[in-house]
Amino acid sequence: MKNSKFLPERPLKVAILGSSGAVGSELLKILEERNFPVSDLRLLSSARSAGKQITWKGQKYILKEVNQNSFENIDLVFASAGGSISKQWLSIIKEKNALLIDNSSAFRMQPDVPLVVPEVNSSDAFKHNGVISNPNCTTILLTLVLAPLQAISNIQRIIISTYQSASGAGQLAMEELKSTTKKYLEGDPQESQILPYSLAFNLFLHNSPMNKNSYCEEEMKMINETRKILNMPTLKISATCVRVPILRAHSESVNIEFEDKVDVSNALQQLKLSKGIDIIEDFNKNRFPMPDDVMGKDNIAVGRVREDLSNPNALELWLCGDQIRKGAALNAVQIAEILIKKNYEK
Amino acid sequence: MKNSKFLPERPLKVAILGSSGAVGSELLKILEERNFPVSDLRLLSSARSAGKQITWKGQKYILKEVNQNSFENIDLVFASAGGSISKQWLSIIKEKNALLIDNSSAFRMQPDVPLVVPEVNSSDAFKHNGVISNPNCTTILLTLVLAPLQAISNIQRIIISTYQSASGAGQLAMEELKSTTKKYLEGDPQESQILPYSLAFNLFLHNSPMNKNSYCEEEMKMINETRKILNMPTLKISATCVRVPILRAHSESVNIEFEDKVDVSNALQQLKLSKGIDIIEDFNKNRFPMPDDVMGKDNIAVGRVREDLSNPNALELWLCGDQIRKGAALNAVQIAEILIKKNYEK
Repeated sequence: MKNSKFLPERPLKVAILGSSGAVGSELLKILEERNFPVSDLRLLSSARSAGKQITWKGQKYILKEVNQNSFENIDLVFASAGGSISKQWLSIIKEKNALLIDNSSAFRMQPDVPLVVPEVNSSDAFKHNGVISNPNCTTILLTLVLAPLQAISNIQRIIISTYQSASGAGQLAMEELKSTTKKYLEGDPQESQILPYSLAFNLFLHNSPMNKNSYCEEEMKMINETRKILNMPTLKISATCVRVPILRAHSESVNIEFEDKVDVSNALQQLKLSKGIDIIEDFNKNRFPMPDDVMGKDNIAVGRVREDLSNPNALELWLCGDQIRKGAALNAVQIAEILIKKNYEK
Repeated sequence: MKNSKFLPERPLKVAILGSSGAVGSELLKILEERNFPVSDLRLLSSARSAGKQITWKGQKYILKEVNQNSFENIDLVFASAGGSISKQWLSIIKEKNALLIDNSSAFRMQPDVPLVVPEVNSSDAFKHNGVISNPNCTTILLTLVLAPLQAISNIQRIIISTYQSASGAGQLAMEELKSTTKKYLEGDPQESQILPYSLAFNLFLHNSPMNKNSYCEEEMKMINETRKILNMPTLKISATCVRVPILRAHSESVNIEFEDKVDVSNALQQLKLSKGIDIIEDFNKNRFPMPDDVMGKDNIAVGRVREDLSNPNALELWLCGDQIRKGAALNAVQIAEILIKKNYEK
């Protein structure tokens, strides 16, 4: 029965696993902003963060350490505490018939787990068996532009270089970027503790574990997840992921080769009509998307769409998106919203 | 007569136009470090900087405003005061039979002006008619890796995304990056005055004037200058140039498609044997070039050489180089050194 894939038709009992992290905090903010129908909110955390107090919709909540009973009578779990935590609690969450929307990479490539960017493949959400994965941040931003362009002409090959913010490595990495930069400016450069190298006026290739093919996990996520979301399993794609001294917005330089020549104005028009995208493009004023434009914003910003000078069938474009928001928390909430019946009344 | 292209066989009378800028200052440092044969040093500047004092090799020099007589009895002029200044003084410099090594873009694409990266096309230097152009910083770093790889297999297409430091916009831009970042950290974000937008935890597409083809000047420099230096006038190349909050080292993410499949180990071996390149590549430790590695260094650093997953005939690689040093001042001095006869005794 298709409807069984929907969330219950009443305000929901929601648990958040990893409530105090960068994504968890943003998730709470977004649930409030979007007036997501919540009747009961359970904020779960590690033993370390348990006892902390968080205010949500004017009410105080105490973070509770996650345990065997945490998911009793829960409809929906948002997890952003890392893959091992999600794996640890999955069977209990399923046993309690709660839906898990998981921000980790733990289940993303499992064939029975939908990987969803609502603007791109919302119908996949209904194929869930209790778990829906939220894609990697860079992948979400990328697929938002690829899907509408694929509708114009078949994409043949994609080459990406990223400019990823500290937030992708968590709240502590953002704080470390600020503290190491401050120390650097005071003439007292310091080693980093959270990030592998200091980001203070420095950048480095993404330090996720290296695969045998010399691509790091982050790059393989972009490649494999993009293929899954677009349902193009053999799509040719290569990526270079780079961490830059930016706080919370990712940028991407994207080269897309199409089957046919795609007119720049057509591509731009198609992107303009697409949900989740703002165009920032003023060639006269030399004004294109910047991280500062998208911080705290729902939409990603796209601009500088132009013909690749090395291939008339390819386009070059540039995008920026808030990594914590559309790149993580917002997308997770939007996935849940797909599963709330439209005619549902709070 | 070939030898007439050489500089005189005696210590040289050198003038520096733009002595107080980021590149001018570095140039003085490099001339001292390399014990460049100087018998007379004339430090020239704008009216604004005239009167400033600079110490070189323990001796004090006063910056003098450039005028009609500045190039009298001068053998060699290094200019880094911008294209309009170079153009303004060219005829007088030529009239005085001095050689101009020009850091601006003013003459780079003129057919009778050699554009030289000594490790790549040193013989072109001898084709000069009184002016040799120093290429754009990003181009110098790029051609250092392209030339040795072209020797393995013909390059078919190049796609580049850059991560360019504030220094490319001059000393004041570097200072502004520090001051705006300090203000940002103090909770008092400020507008930028030198750069078009604040670089404090922000980045933006390179703001050089936009061409009709939607590529900015900086990108067109990379494209056209690379073709000229490699003597490959129809080379397919596309570039996206980005300014990032880094002080003085540029990084580049480079995708190179070859005529044949190029083995990664062969490419790496070739790069290792090449002058001007250090390999920083440890896949086990996830350690590759970073801006911090190359600050103040002569050599660029290359690493993360790997097969492009979207094309078996293409390689992806990553490089970093000091923009002020190899990207500007050092390359200019190395050009001059080509024209000093090997058997020359000081």
